[in-house]
Amino acid sequence: MNLKYAVIGTGGIGGYYGGRLANSGKEVHFLFHSDYNYVIKNGLEVDSVDGRFILPKVNAYSCSEKMPKVDVVLVALKTTNNYLLKDLLQPLLKENTIIILIQNGLGIEEKLFQELPDCFIAGGLAFICSEKIGPGKICHMDYGKLTIGSYNVSDKVMLEQVCADLETAGVPTELSNDLNNSRWQKLVWNIPFNGLTVVINASTKELVSDLNTKDLIYEMMKEVVAAGNYCGADLDLSFADKMIDLTQKMTPYAPSMKVDFDSKRKLEIDAIYTQPILFAKRTGFSMKHVEVIEKQLLFLDSRNRK
Amino acid sequence: MNLKYAVIGTGGIGGYYGGRLANSGKEVHFLFHSDYNYVIKNGLEVDSVDGRFILPKVNAYSCSEKMPKVDVVLVALKTTNNYLLKDLLQPLLKENTIIILIQNGLGIEEKLFQELPDCFIAGGLAFICSEKIGPGKICHMDYGKLTIGSYNVSDKVMLEQVCADLETAGVPTELSNDLNNSRWQKLVWNIPFNGLTVVINASTKELVSDLNTKDLIYEMMKEVVAAGNYCGADLDLSFADKMIDLTQKMTPYAPSMKVDFDSKRKLEIDAIYTQPILFAKRTGFSMKHVEVIEKQLLFLDSRNRK
Repeated sequence: MNLKYAVIGTGGIGGYYGGRLANSGKEVHFLFHSDYNYVIKNGLEVDSVDGRFILPKVNAYSCSEKMPKVDVVLVALKTTNNYLLKDLLQPLLKENTIIILIQNGLGIEEKLFQELPDCFIAGGLAFICSEKIGPGKICHMDYGKLTIGSYNVSDKVMLEQVCADLETAGVPTELSNDLNNSRWQKLVWNIPFNGLTVVINASTKELVSDLNTKDLIYEMMKEVVAAGNYCGADLDLSFADKMIDLTQKMTPYAPSMKVDFDSKRKLEIDAIYTQPILFAKRTGFSMKHVEVIEKQLLFLDSRNRK
Repeated sequence: MNLKYAVIGTGGIGGYYGGRLANSGKEVHFLFHSDYNYVIKNGLEVDSVDGRFILPKVNAYSCSEKMPKVDVVLVALKTTNNYLLKDLLQPLLKENTIIILIQNGLGIEEKLFQELPDCFIAGGLAFICSEKIGPGKICHMDYGKLTIGSYNVSDKVMLEQVCADLETAGVPTELSNDLNNSRWQKLVWNIPFNGLTVVINASTKELVSDLNTKDLIYEMMKEVVAAGNYCGADLDLSFADKMIDLTQKMTPYAPSMKVDFDSKRKLEIDAIYTQPILFAKRTGFSMKHVEVIEKQLLFLDSRNRK
């Protein structure tokens, strides 16, 4: 089965995974925004820790109406732009197209499913440090694993094929059989570190080196684990210890929200904070520590973009 | 009864209240630190919204060993210097001396009582905007009421006399019959505003004008009211609404912790955050919102003074 791909949101994440697929010979159609003209002329460059590669000829588009229908759409927009998603996706969809939301946070598949109830949706969780550092230029700094889980995809064979294509392209993948669990698991790290690096302007390393913030991070992780389990996930508290250990060992690193904040872009507060808080609240659990960070972020985000 | 006073900590608060008493003819002995030589030469100046006055001749001391024994000691040090208090106080004390801790936070009378178990201690709550703006120069910008409550003072007549002396000197006073209640009541405002102005670098006005931080402040106030009531206070939630209304109407103003932070001074986190959290925890109540701010402040304070 030779799957045809589209990438919506060709930034650090979409450009990397789509670029890898194209580099391995797959047919990939990329939607660009401001970089369209540059890429048409110069191609797409991926400067990866695992080796640099350039795609001189890219199937590049400046609007999705001009794109062909595909088998798989990789969505790597910031969730703050998901209000555009329904319109962007419609030209690309045929009967069995799978939409994979490679995005942070919670509740995004639910929202898209409400807008496009006939679609097949999966979630993708990228464990990667990768950024767009210039027009048509992606810098992949570390990690890279992509975990994919079905939201309502009945055709598991096709998801397996996507994983196989990615593996062939050099991307380690995992097929999760519980997307909800995987999303909550990722939040265990994302919720404390994304918010705190912004609110107190500190690196992940500083946060785990200081006993007070390390303690706060652990308390927040405990809260996310508890909230996740209230919402049907199956997380163990030992995962929090593991994440803190890992962060102590990894090179200091600015989470995506810190990068967005420093670039004065809108923060993904809804997907990473508000939705998990609401999901937990519906089950009767209050994420009180996380609520404080959410409100602080809402204030800072609004002031940051004034 | 002609009471003799001493002031330990002649800054914005001690310099103002002590200055008022001296200006009204009371015998007041002031302990100075860095300003000693300046004040000996130039006196003490209080530039108050209610009128400016200068005390050309001040009973000034550079160490408390040289000070006389007095009837009343007004302590207006930052609580971060309370580890010095026992040694500073001892030369001033006679059998019935009353020590009034005009300081923020909770648990400070308890700590002093443990160190000086034979002493008579009261608490003072200053509702005032007053700062030292130069050597021997106090600027009193707004408000000024002083609430005094006994911790273990059996001689109520003497406390009444202190209040009468202050009133004569132009200071509105109130004698609280429940110091614990008064301290918790003051924390309803102090806990949200002191910490948040530091953590997200915003004025009191900005915090109550933004719906998200206003919401957070209200949640924190609710938590302080609940914690206080667990600890034997008798606070009503309507007091939180009143405090938010008041803050919306008052001119934007930097709480003492924000002033300390901007001057790179040690923050009063223990008295304003850690002690209330511990007092509440002992009764079985967790101040979860407040804990987040406490940890953030501990991190920021430590980095700020590196």
